[in-house]
Amino acid sequence: MDPIVTDAYAVIMAGGNGERFWPLSTRAKPKQFLSLVGGKPLLTLAVERLKGLFPPERIYVITADRLLKATADAAPGLPSANLIGEPCRRDTAAAVASACGLVRRLSPHGVVCILTADQLIEDAAAFRQVLRDAVAQATEKDAIVTLGIHPTYPATGFGYIEAGAPQETGTQTSFCAVDRFVEKPPLETAKTYLESGRFLWNAGMFIWRADVMQKALSENVPELAALSDRLAAAPSADAAIAEIAASYPSLTPISIDFAVMEHVRNILVARCSFGWDDVGSWGSLISHFAADPDGNVLLGSCEQIDAHRNIVISEGRLTALIGVEGLAVVQTANATLICPQEQAQRIKALLKKIAARNDADAYL
Amino acid sequence: MDPIVTDAYAVIMAGGNGERFWPLSTRAKPKQFLSLVGGKPLLTLAVERLKGLFPPERIYVITADRLLKATADAAPGLPSANLIGEPCRRDTAAAVASACGLVRRLSPHGVVCILTADQLIEDAAAFRQVLRDAVAQATEKDAIVTLGIHPTYPATGFGYIEAGAPQETGTQTSFCAVDRFVEKPPLETAKTYLESGRFLWNAGMFIWRADVMQKALSENVPELAALSDRLAAAPSADAAIAEIAASYPSLTPISIDFAVMEHVRNILVARCSFGWDDVGSWGSLISHFAADPDGNVLLGSCEQIDAHRNIVISEGRLTALIGVEGLAVVQTANATLICPQEQAQRIKALLKKIAARNDADAYL
Repeated sequence: MDPIVTDAYAVIMAGGNGERFWPLSTRAKPKQFLSLVGGKPLLTLAVERLKGLFPPERIYVITADRLLKATADAAPGLPSANLIGEPCRRDTAAAVASACGLVRRLSPHGVVCILTADQLIEDAAAFRQVLRDAVAQATEKDAIVTLGIHPTYPATGFGYIEAGAPQETGTQTSFCAVDRFVEKPPLETAKTYLESGRFLWNAGMFIWRADVMQKALSENVPELAALSDRLAAAPSADAAIAEIAASYPSLTPISIDFAVMEHVRNILVARCSFGWDDVGSWGSLISHFAADPDGNVLLGSCEQIDAHRNIVISEGRLTALIGVEGLAVVQTANATLICPQEQAQRIKALLKKIAARNDADAYL
Repeated sequence: MDPIVTDAYAVIMAGGNGERFWPLSTRAKPKQFLSLVGGKPLLTLAVERLKGLFPPERIYVITADRLLKATADAAPGLPSANLIGEPCRRDTAAAVASACGLVRRLSPHGVVCILTADQLIEDAAAFRQVLRDAVAQATEKDAIVTLGIHPTYPATGFGYIEAGAPQETGTQTSFCAVDRFVEKPPLETAKTYLESGRFLWNAGMFIWRADVMQKALSENVPELAALSDRLAAAPSADAAIAEIAASYPSLTPISIDFAVMEHVRNILVARCSFGWDDVGSWGSLISHFAADPDGNVLLGSCEQIDAHRNIVISEGRLTALIGVEGLAVVQTANATLICPQEQAQRIKALLKKIAARNDADAYL
């Protein structure tokens, strides 16, 4: 399987902050470094699934400065110059603009695949086929290609893309126009989305030519278009990285969805069925493992009596449950979390309380 | 406060096996070694509350052989010859018979106070006054004196003593005849006991002269009376201990209640109100601590959001709760238990499952 086009680049966004999987994830070890499923860190899986499609020198990872070492460990085989550290968090649009500038420096019309570091994809070959077709579309047309996942249940935790007119592409992958992006819906709405057959989950991945990106940035976020221009004009890779370090602090944080996607018209969506999950919470992790006869997923040393539908991650010690139900129990070297799975969104509030402790650094 | 009688001996039974407070208690560290309340091991508190009443050389501790070192650590100031190790578990009657023989060797009519190692007593001075009066009664009369605790709620976890005719003793403590011993009652029965005013909790402590004990043993468990005789006749303390080691394996295990108390008539009960609790479970521990505004008792590093009426013991790590209620959460270096407080009696069954693991020794 040869790289599909000589002028395509993968940019993996790996800037997670490690809240949703606390205490397994921490500031020093956000979700992309966790081996939740498959025995390897999510970032490693994200890099490995690109094998055969991009040569290592055309795979970039954008992460936080302080995570560069961990990123290098989790993404072996990539040139260290391709691991880009952001000096501070400025949301996704800044990272996309940086990717745009870095690629334009090498190839003004190169195709940039903005990919995720912390999602699970079951069928890597199917994923590569979609990318191959998406890169071809992005090369031929002045389009932004997004990946839309066929929903398998009425999810309330994902954004949706409403697909419009099917496109004649002659590719293995089906592409449609995009009617609109919609935010995470309530359950009843999600059910109608599922039934309609027109709505796809927004996987947050975008494939576009660098010049198309630059035009979209210029029209919507001039500040970021200017950053991209400065990176494209940098005399060396090191100078480009220095430019990122210098520019970031003064940037206004904004997501790529708000900054660009909601305002542009030239979007296509690829209809994907490669088995996708963003594993956004302890509860969503359960479906990726075989449960015991009582519906528990017990990872590590565990014993239970009359416990049902719990997920337990037990690092280095025994976790013993009696008569509890629907809990996420996660114990690591420093901390143990006990939380009903359906209340996992409250971890954020919990972490605020923990952050106020004198000994917070030991736990976060 | 001088020792009340020159011829009284305290024998603290410290043979617990560490199941009910697992994982805080283990085979190597049964309940009597836990600092549950008051910052000191229960055994240490049990020894310290005898100060001024018995000189150290007349305080004995009967424990398991393998716990002698831990017992010495928890009972500083006692002569090491007074720490008696049982080579195997043979229930309480064997320990009482051993105590009887050891005291008879020194003093055929000495008074033996069979005391507990793992109960909480709030008012140590009041406890000592009861013992002083009980020793006087045991000295003067051929009676077995038991301690009965005024019940403060309809407990279903304790045995009861039905008090009969009040005795004229002229002591600060009130003594009654004993009508009968009753096993742990169901709740409705416990309520009628509480209302009647005649029922007292059986604290499992007995004060009697060595010759009265020996007579009771002879009439009810000749095998143990013979052991007591051999100990009484031992030429040295070391020889007595060697006799225990040699005799124990062939003894029939039986409790002192079944073996003796249910069959003898000469029993008095002292009515006690010194604040007593046998802290038999995680749930009963809650009442000994100040709870947070949500009713949680959180010991160690803990944070919670919307959690209610939990007891958490968190050794060395942070325990974080979200939205859970009525749990006992206990984490130690090796294991974490999560269990509704009212299901704590199932720990025994859990430990059987754990015992079947290859790595059981790391946890039990």
